Amino acid sequence: MTTHVERVRQSFFKQPFMSTLGAELTAVGEGMVEIRLPFSPSLTQQDGYLHAGAVTAVLDSACGYAALSVAPADHEVLTVEFKVNLLAPAAGKVFIAKAQVKRAGKKLTVCTADAFAITGDTQKVVATMLTTIMAVPITPAK
Amino acid sequence: MTTHVERVRQSFFKQPFMSTLGAELTAVGEGMVEIRLPFSPSLTQQDGYLHAGAVTAVLDSACGYAALSVAPADHEVLTVEFKVNLLAPAAGKVFIAKAQVKRAGKKLTVCTADAFAITGDTQKVVATMLTTIMAVPITPAK
Amino acid sequence: MTTHVERVRQSFFKQPFMSTLGAELTAVGEGMVEIRLPFSPSLTQQDGYLHAGAVTAVLDSACGYAALSVAPADHEVLTVEFKVNLLAPAAGKVFIAKAQVKRAGKKLTVCTADAFAITGDTQKVVATMLTTIMAVPITPAK
Amino acid sequence: MTTHVERVRQSFFKQPFMSTLGAELTAVGEGMVEIRLPFSPSLTQQDGYLHAGAVTAVLDSACGYAALSVAPADHEVLTVEFKVNLLAPAAGKVFIAKAQVKRAGKKLTVCTADAFAITGDTQKVVATMLTTIMAVPITPAK
Repeated sequence: MTTHVERVRQSFFKQPFMSTLGAELTAVGEGMVEIRLPFSPSLTQQDGYLHAGAVTAVLDSACGYAALSVAPADHEVLTVEFKVNLLAPAAGKVFIAKAQVKRAGKKLTVCTADAFAITGDTQKVVATMLTTIMAVPITPAK
Repeated sequence: MTTHVERVRQSFFKQPFMSTLGAELTAVGEGMVEIRLPFSPSLTQQDGYLHAGAVTAVLDSACGYAALSVAPADHEVLTVEFKVNLLAPAAGKVFIAKAQVKRAGKKLTVCTADAFAITGDTQKVVATMLTTIMAVPITPAK
Repeated sequence: MTTHVERVRQSFFKQPFMSTLGAELTAVGEGMVEIRLPFSPSLTQQDGYLHAGAVTAVLDSACGYAALSVAPADHEVLTVEFKVNLLAPAAGKVFIAKAQVKRAGKKLTVCTADAFAITGDTQKVVATMLTTIMAVPITPAK
Repeated sequence: MTTHVERVRQSFFKQPFMSTLGAELTAVGEGMVEIRLPFSPSLTQQDGYLHAGAVTAVLDSACGYAALSVAPADHEVLTVEFKVNLLAPAAGKVFIAKAQVKRAGKKLTVCTADAFAITGDTQKVVATMLTTIMAVPITPAK
């Protein structure tokens, strides 16, 4: 069944910020999502590394969509809160955020995600997220 | 003495991501920083609100610069980790991130920040951050 | 009106762990709670300071009760998650956790709390918490 | 080589709070630690479940010791901060906290841990921690 995959894809394309960053949805499964973000000088902080806000944006979207992939069909999801540890400078040509559902509840879903910097064949974890996401009924007017 | 203010301003202008977002540094004091982010459709998520990643970016930069403003002159700062609670949909024409140092240590500084959505005369808190920042000696080669 | 104060006091006395720690409820207001914890060698870690788990326990109870003090009468509260920064060694004769509601929502309430070590006239912040608490309807059977 | 195991065991026995809780060190490896906590009514909150502070105490000690197991021999470790998500009511006869190092750095080590409730043959995750731990040189006087 591909319904949850379709929901995630449709919502992703309605997130202008993902497009502003240049992020792409590269994988969607039941309870897992991957987002790819190519390096761009426009996304950097003062030392030339990817800004933590850009890293967080793709981690947050990946987690939100992982949660959406297991949510009831008539619900959407909202991020309640997240924690991010920056494990290494975000240096690389491409970054991949890999999110998975840790526990899906009726109202709240907890997800984890890692962000990896990829340069050639090497893949290095640069950040990790632990987040709480709330499922809310879709209101007709929206 | 304006040295710490100057350091913060100089570093801010070297953060391309702040410029990509359209963020401006609006206040710097000893242990406090404010960053202003006008709303833009390019920064939104699927419901038209500011993306949590954009909110986090200005909260993180504000906290980092608040920490830098109290760091020794030969040190720079790196974000170790942060937690963000999203308190309300980030709806507004302008957003302001206000950061302050909670405790400054030799190596680690803890900061808090709130993000406010401003529409006309009303100001509403939409997110809050609690973060750990590390001061590291500036290496000559950089 | 003292109803919310009464609810908090009644629930506090039903928390055996608070009694095991030796903690006392010292203040309850609308959206604020204080808990006092005298130092005891039985609560320490390897260096003789209060264990982070003991500090967290009183911060968590203080935040939970601050949230309960503003919850509807037919609801109880559950901690969803918290983050704690340990700001200084928890050295002192008495500790006080002071919690306040940051934002009260229909389902989720966000609270902050500081833990202070008190020795004579000096009061020093040793830890801070940012937490998400969920209000849930009390089920009749409970 | 069992040196790091020995260091962890020796430090654990110097943590009176672990003994107060009734916690036992059940496994130590390089970068991993398990702590077992039998249920006791003295550790509960108002609904009869294990108090979040007790759960956090064993998660924190497990993470600290996982970090210590990979720290240089002349260093000790201090918890900088942690985040805990409470995933399910802590109901069970025995709880086990399993911690592992996520990334070990020169100064800072990031660990994750899960707490499981065990009843008969079933094991259920009830909480998860993401934490930052600092290695500091042991001062001779201590």
